[in-house]
Amino acid sequence: MTDNKIKNEDGKLELIINAAQKRFAHYGLCKTTMNEIASDVGMGKASLYYYFPDKETLFEAVIKKEQNVFFDEMDKILNSGIDATALLKKYVKLRSLHFRHLLNLSKLRSDFFHNTKPVFAKAFESFKQKEVEIVAGIIQYGITTKEFKRGNKHENAEFLVHLLLGVRMVKLKYKEINDFDESDYEDLDKNMCKVAGMFLKEIQTEVASR
Amino acid sequence: MTDNKIKNEDGKLELIINAAQKRFAHYGLCKTTMNEIASDVGMGKASLYYYFPDKETLFEAVIKKEQNVFFDEMDKILNSGIDATALLKKYVKLRSLHFRHLLNLSKLRSDFFHNTKPVFAKAFESFKQKEVEIVAGIIQYGITTKEFKRGNKHENAEFLVHLLLGVRMVKLKYKEINDFDESDYEDLDKNMCKVAGMFLKEIQTEVASR
Repeated sequence: MTDNKIKNEDGKLELIINAAQKRFAHYGLCKTTMNEIASDVGMGKASLYYYFPDKETLFEAVIKKEQNVFFDEMDKILNSGIDATALLKKYVKLRSLHFRHLLNLSKLRSDFFHNTKPVFAKAFESFKQKEVEIVAGIIQYGITTKEFKRGNKHENAEFLVHLLLGVRMVKLKYKEINDFDESDYEDLDKNMCKVAGMFLKEIQTEVASR
Repeated sequence: MTDNKIKNEDGKLELIINAAQKRFAHYGLCKTTMNEIASDVGMGKASLYYYFPDKETLFEAVIKKEQNVFFDEMDKILNSGIDATALLKKYVKLRSLHFRHLLNLSKLRSDFFHNTKPVFAKAFESFKQKEVEIVAGIIQYGITTKEFKRGNKHENAEFLVHLLLGVRMVKLKYKEINDFDESDYEDLDKNMCKVAGMFLKEIQTEVASR
């Protein structure tokens, strides 16, 4: 393939994913058809299937796009020169926002969260692993700058990521996603920040915590 | 009803619940029939239905019995004269044990946890509310003894109870209940204690945390 062809292919992929994202956001996964997405981008159904073998794979690509927005933002923060404590707080804020974006992304809602299809599980699992790596990196940085105590950075990172996930899961247990309003997001954000504060106290050195 | 009759009724209830508990523990909710339980206690099926209109209600009674074991144990701890910090740690240990007992109680497992039947949801919700009250009581006691800082004891209690619930939910998300082994219970217990430790640091006064 020539460079131009690759570029065109990339352009088409992006076009499809953007169109799918809009459809999913307005009508949900079940009510959106591959036909509609094909027609949105002025493409035959067969051509669309050339790029995505089924709707679930296309939806996975949309989730991954959203996930990459989070990772790109995290990259910017990681390179902003702030200290490890501030980095960890920014991570939690951004993570809370990402959850909200994912929810707003679609009217899938219960579909989205209770769906056990391996394709979604895979996307979420790989996201979580990257997330743990990022947090472990922040903890390592904090150990270097003597803000944080020495310890098992990977174990601690996973512990924090799981605690934050637990906060979201408990919230979803007690409130249907469909009924989420502004105050629920605020409540979630508040609890996630509270967890971050507790976690920080746990790992900070005596000097840093003063 | 005479006192004797009430006593007899109570005795029958206990007999039924104990028989049901054994059946559920060995064969699970689905594979146990009301017929079998009736026969275990030497009772006609119709008589059993006089006490419990259906299997779910009987199962709820078994859960409540287990929950009462937890509350009775908590009562003993609460009256043992130890300080609030020790009380909170004991509560978390006992809560972790209770979770394990509930799992061992039955081979229901996925049934048990993914079942959305309102009858179970009600039993768990009422348990959680009592649990929050107990923790709020411990926090209040700690404020009185100046171990803990003043603050919204109910909000803090719910926060801790939800954090611990989150730890269990995340664990169950990543591992099928059927595959739980000793190391999983240890891992869960360790993480619940870690959460308790973080929470304590957060609410303890400067004096108490030294």
